[in-house]
Amino acid sequence: MRDTPLIALLTDFGQSDAYVGTMKGIMLGICPQARLVDLTHAVEPQNIRQAAYVLLTAFRHFPPETIFLVVVDPGVGTAREPIAVETSHGWYVAPNNGVLSFVLPSVQVRHTAVLENTDYQLLHASQTFHGRDIFCPAAAHLANGVDLPQFGPPVPELIKLDDPALVVTEGEIRGEVLHIDHFGNVITSIGHLTWTAPGTLELNPQFGAYDGPPLNLDAAHCRVMLAAQSLKTIRPTYGAVATGALTPLVGSSGQLEIGVNQGSAAQTLAVRLGDPVVLSYTLTL
Amino acid sequence: MRDTPLIALLTDFGQSDAYVGTMKGIMLGICPQARLVDLTHAVEPQNIRQAAYVLLTAFRHFPPETIFLVVVDPGVGTAREPIAVETSHGWYVAPNNGVLSFVLPSVQVRHTAVLENTDYQLLHASQTFHGRDIFCPAAAHLANGVDLPQFGPPVPELIKLDDPALVVTEGEIRGEVLHIDHFGNVITSIGHLTWTAPGTLELNPQFGAYDGPPLNLDAAHCRVMLAAQSLKTIRPTYGAVATGALTPLVGSSGQLEIGVNQGSAAQTLAVRLGDPVVLSYTLTL
Amino acid sequence: MRDTPLIALLTDFGQSDAYVGTMKGIMLGICPQARLVDLTHAVEPQNIRQAAYVLLTAFRHFPPETIFLVVVDPGVGTAREPIAVETSHGWYVAPNNGVLSFVLPSVQVRHTAVLENTDYQLLHASQTFHGRDIFCPAAAHLANGVDLPQFGPPVPELIKLDDPALVVTEGEIRGEVLHIDHFGNVITSIGHLTWTAPGTLELNPQFGAYDGPPLNLDAAHCRVMLAAQSLKTIRPTYGAVATGALTPLVGSSGQLEIGVNQGSAAQTLAVRLGDPVVLSYTLTL
Repeated sequence: MRDTPLIALLTDFGQSDAYVGTMKGIMLGICPQARLVDLTHAVEPQNIRQAAYVLLTAFRHFPPETIFLVVVDPGVGTAREPIAVETSHGWYVAPNNGVLSFVLPSVQVRHTAVLENTDYQLLHASQTFHGRDIFCPAAAHLANGVDLPQFGPPVPELIKLDDPALVVTEGEIRGEVLHIDHFGNVITSIGHLTWTAPGTLELNPQFGAYDGPPLNLDAAHCRVMLAAQSLKTIRPTYGAVATGALTPLVGSSGQLEIGVNQGSAAQTLAVRLGDPVVLSYTLTL
Repeated sequence: MRDTPLIALLTDFGQSDAYVGTMKGIMLGICPQARLVDLTHAVEPQNIRQAAYVLLTAFRHFPPETIFLVVVDPGVGTAREPIAVETSHGWYVAPNNGVLSFVLPSVQVRHTAVLENTDYQLLHASQTFHGRDIFCPAAAHLANGVDLPQFGPPVPELIKLDDPALVVTEGEIRGEVLHIDHFGNVITSIGHLTWTAPGTLELNPQFGAYDGPPLNLDAAHCRVMLAAQSLKTIRPTYGAVATGALTPLVGSSGQLEIGVNQGSAAQTLAVRLGDPVVLSYTLTL
Repeated sequence: MRDTPLIALLTDFGQSDAYVGTMKGIMLGICPQARLVDLTHAVEPQNIRQAAYVLLTAFRHFPPETIFLVVVDPGVGTAREPIAVETSHGWYVAPNNGVLSFVLPSVQVRHTAVLENTDYQLLHASQTFHGRDIFCPAAAHLANGVDLPQFGPPVPELIKLDDPALVVTEGEIRGEVLHIDHFGNVITSIGHLTWTAPGTLELNPQFGAYDGPPLNLDAAHCRVMLAAQSLKTIRPTYGAVATGALTPLVGSSGQLEIGVNQGSAAQTLAVRLGDPVVLSYTLTL
């Protein structure tokens, strides 16, 4: 039995049914000492890509021995495999549909398993709720110390999603809107950005094919274009502009973000997931 | 003191106030080692029937010693009794308004108590928030090992709701829409259904007056009628039809359900709770 | 290390992102034995006043050693200080923006600290998510027993919000709408009210400048005016009037409230936060 196991849940189940609560009841029946934390259950129904991004922003802040139970599963009951993946930072239990593919490149994969062993499933598994019948029991048995090979054979091929758009050219970076948060902040695929000195941002592209050296951007002379708006200067935080004003800034995960001081950029700009974003930049001297 | 007590909460309180959090603070003050799990707090305000159904789908998946705190209580502060019920699968703390009546027929009731003893209530109980003042302290004291007779006298009569509609005749079963879930899946009172062989469904009616033998339905020759639609063939899962297509299927609680592959059946069909559903069936040979 | 530390979270982060979950992951990494309870994460974005009120209604029901992590922080990354306050009932970790100012007058403040010590922050704190980088690590280190002076120097001045409106004159009390809850109950600044006998309400004004003796109101001869309605008689609970009828009543925190039996007063009355409320009263003889 692992010491004080921690299971983090990420689903598109919402919280209006007892689906999530039922999974927790099952897991606490199997592993009474598990601690359970919700990442979110408000992933857009069946939006694997959004779940993959939310997991990417969160996983590193959890202890490395955390078990992530990720159930966004439009293919439930079809041929897609239920899997578990053991890595250098986290165990992951999920359908093999790409939902782990934004996280896996930044960790070392140690073992994988297809969740075939019915000893670690609910009796008479349904074909419509594998979260309850296959995935959550697997997470709880992992928490009890069951090793991956006991669940089933290695996964033949881990499914990957296309990377978010990120194309770096001279003077210009093209990305896309990746997420819109609860506050209406518009989070883009352009990152990671780090303030190295006042007014200077270091860009280490995390998506796309770029493999040049980091770029040192002059924040005051950057310009961000999206939704027919052109916004000058990347600022450190929302409150650096007047209440109600739009500003590009560096979001909490190091992504280029567009926010409104005490307001909603998504509402002001009427953007959607996937919309193109262009950053025109000048390098520092 | 019970070993690692588990309290599962089901209310219509929503999560926009601190009502649920306050109850948790009180319970952890009384029983610091309690583990707390939310079933849902998004029951439609005052909808006792919906809460009764959600509880029915979830309770069996929890350990039998779980304490269920169920507060959907339109009659708060009036004559309806606050009660506790000890059963073969779960303790239940709730108003005596029928919210337990879908679960109780499938468990053995061992003891009941009216929650009269003010030693196990908050000082100066309000007349508008018995969840905080009477129900949650009772759940926490139960978790501490207080026995039912200490709370008060047995409940004179457990209030029952009418059963969901389910009428079985030759070739036809009439039921109703019982629940619409977060995904827009339309869940009916027709069940339990179990796949006994590919294409064959065994029906053991769980509601209504039917007491004949189980029926063996030919899934390919069933037809489901609701909301002026007629849908042929009960399928095992959403992904068995094209993206966007409607299909009858067996839901995760064994009920006949109508879903859309990667979409919302409730939106497509514009149905409501209580709408009639008819299943025309052919028996297998 | 404190014994079974309890951390209660109150934010405006919503639950659609992994922001809250990420903070929990960090806290459980620092203090694995912490128990975490959500008050609510649905405070209106940047509404410090609403958060201050929600905290006031909840804090007393938690054990006195609870750590309250309150992050409603429109000034994140600007000059406002991140602080911790140790009191006779609770430790509080929050931005110094007034969010604690409704609670602090009713407890004894023992120590305060500006959260300056970067040993108790995440490495490379962002300027947009101090909930993750500064506040939640502080709460978890407090849970581990770190004392306030280790975090930084005392807070020069605790910021205070204006009190909710409450003006008592002969025969009339003027207040405001303070909160609208999940059920649509309209909660006002007029309180505390306590039933001392059937039909008699004792009023001890908790806000405003009144310092006379408690008033004994004749509940049957009170009249509440708001939103062009005039409602007679303060009743003990919702069910004291017919289904669908409006009534003034004493809410669960002792405030004058306007509710509808099994319905939403906010919808019926179309009121908003801050709207004026007038209570005309007759004293008991």
